[in-house]
Amino acid sequence: MARAWHLKSRPQGLPTNENFELKDFDLPGLSDGMVRVRNHWLSVDPYMRGRMNDVKSYVPPFQVGEPMDGGAVGEVVESQAEGFAPGDLVLHMSGWRDEAVVPARLVMKLPDLGAEPQQFLGILGTTGATAWFGLLDVASAKEKDIVFVSAAAGAVGSAVVQIAKARGMTVIASAGGAEKCAWVRSLGADQVIDYKAGPVLKSLAAAAPDGIDVYFDNVGGDHLDAALALARQNARFAICGMIEGYNKAEPTSLRFIMRIIAARIQLKGFIVFDFQPRMAEFYRGMGALLASGKVQAKETVIEGLEAMPQAFLGLFEGANTGKMLVKL
Amino acid sequence: MARAWHLKSRPQGLPTNENFELKDFDLPGLSDGMVRVRNHWLSVDPYMRGRMNDVKSYVPPFQVGEPMDGGAVGEVVESQAEGFAPGDLVLHMSGWRDEAVVPARLVMKLPDLGAEPQQFLGILGTTGATAWFGLLDVASAKEKDIVFVSAAAGAVGSAVVQIAKARGMTVIASAGGAEKCAWVRSLGADQVIDYKAGPVLKSLAAAAPDGIDVYFDNVGGDHLDAALALARQNARFAICGMIEGYNKAEPTSLRFIMRIIAARIQLKGFIVFDFQPRMAEFYRGMGALLASGKVQAKETVIEGLEAMPQAFLGLFEGANTGKMLVKL
Repeated sequence: MARAWHLKSRPQGLPTNENFELKDFDLPGLSDGMVRVRNHWLSVDPYMRGRMNDVKSYVPPFQVGEPMDGGAVGEVVESQAEGFAPGDLVLHMSGWRDEAVVPARLVMKLPDLGAEPQQFLGILGTTGATAWFGLLDVASAKEKDIVFVSAAAGAVGSAVVQIAKARGMTVIASAGGAEKCAWVRSLGADQVIDYKAGPVLKSLAAAAPDGIDVYFDNVGGDHLDAALALARQNARFAICGMIEGYNKAEPTSLRFIMRIIAARIQLKGFIVFDFQPRMAEFYRGMGALLASGKVQAKETVIEGLEAMPQAFLGLFEGANTGKMLVKL
Repeated sequence: MARAWHLKSRPQGLPTNENFELKDFDLPGLSDGMVRVRNHWLSVDPYMRGRMNDVKSYVPPFQVGEPMDGGAVGEVVESQAEGFAPGDLVLHMSGWRDEAVVPARLVMKLPDLGAEPQQFLGILGTTGATAWFGLLDVASAKEKDIVFVSAAAGAVGSAVVQIAKARGMTVIASAGGAEKCAWVRSLGADQVIDYKAGPVLKSLAAAAPDGIDVYFDNVGGDHLDAALALARQNARFAICGMIEGYNKAEPTSLRFIMRIIAARIQLKGFIVFDFQPRMAEFYRGMGALLASGKVQAKETVIEGLEAMPQAFLGLFEGANTGKMLVKL
């Protein structure tokens, strides 16, 4: 018998504990090509909020009454698949539960990069890859660029800050509150804006008197508008997330969208899964930065399967510094 | 003695006749390398509204008390420049006046494409080139793409419709009022939305049940939002103009901006002047379409220098079908 968090009801706006239910479920017996995995680490990510709505998107929506899923790192405890043996540490997508039976083709053995297993859910996982490809590929950021990144104390944002600094860029970052700002500064950001302390536009104008070449957007709304206002010619915006809008119904109000023309700004939305074929390139590059100490992987760890909804909801309250994880 | 329209005062919001003044001015004598041109055709273009504000942009602002300028086609009446002789028909940027003394290096003899002289202010000029490079280069539109273009009865928009059809694309166009819609349909558009008859989003959803691959934006606002709502995966938006916002102070309100992520939409602002080095390519391509009859060049012509402000203000009232010109 295993336990999994089920979607009990679809949230309107900000989710609450009432939307989740922890229930026992029967694990199927192992057939050919399957492995049974005991999860050690579970990931919570902002994109999961979108899956709680009944809308077609780049990942299918969670179904009411069914177990939820997401990134997880665990240990193979039983295998009917060639190449997998008990004790193997693996990454897979059957999270939100303590144990899972999964086809081996959907399971990846952790590559040997000298990293901690849970880092494959963060700095060496989807979040790190999001930062890497968003910054270097989607926004084509290069040495000497002035880069603005929002939610810089978050999992993706803090990775962006560090990659940008390692590549010789000037980094202006935003985060909420003095403590987070101090941490982002300690990661190497040249300027840090506390978005809770005043209007983003005013703070960004002061922090970036010469404007910005790149904006890595995790937030949308006022942050996006301020970036439009300060964009230099041929600026590139990688639109990764708009967490400000995930739980609200009001439209986004942009005063500076028209600058897109005169400044020839490029905005491009992206999904990290599109870069799946290039993960080897990412492991090489990010693995080297991590090994050299140029990138640190901060984590906010919450213990126990029971705490999954709390960890997930914490993402929308800014409860995490770096990657939010649940340890079983 | 020549006459030129001067900027009398900077408009707040929509310009009025009060912002303009027609005054005599002294033409300088001809020095080496200069030509004197008698203008036959003057261009009015929406981008000129931006130049009436005192803000740095891609073209310098008009100065209060000084003559305005813009595209013009005229005839050389006196020349101190090698290669130019009286009778030559030329394109230059000293418009808003009846006569001008201009350095020959800022003057282009009209290429022999078998076209009418005034077409070099429209379909074979900045407006045609805007349509050409915006559609084919900025938005990378290709055969079989579903293309949405706003302000399709305007100078740029009507060129976009025709280029897109000539290249085998499906075209959904918007225009204001039954008469303009009928004309846009006569240009070959597959579906035409009358944006004055109802909400753009609803009309576009009905006209483009499979969504759109490309949006050529001349309008911004609700049109842009509807395009975001209907964009298919990897859609490309060429942002050419946002005439809806030129005269108003309210921010643009976007309900569907967040789709930029899941649909991997790319928005890119552009200025046709950046494509100046590629005008030969444009003359070849557009000249051929024009000669073959695949592209028609509709013009709305107003007579007399006195009518310049009226022609210009008409742009914001939808008074033109195709390119708006003043004939002297």
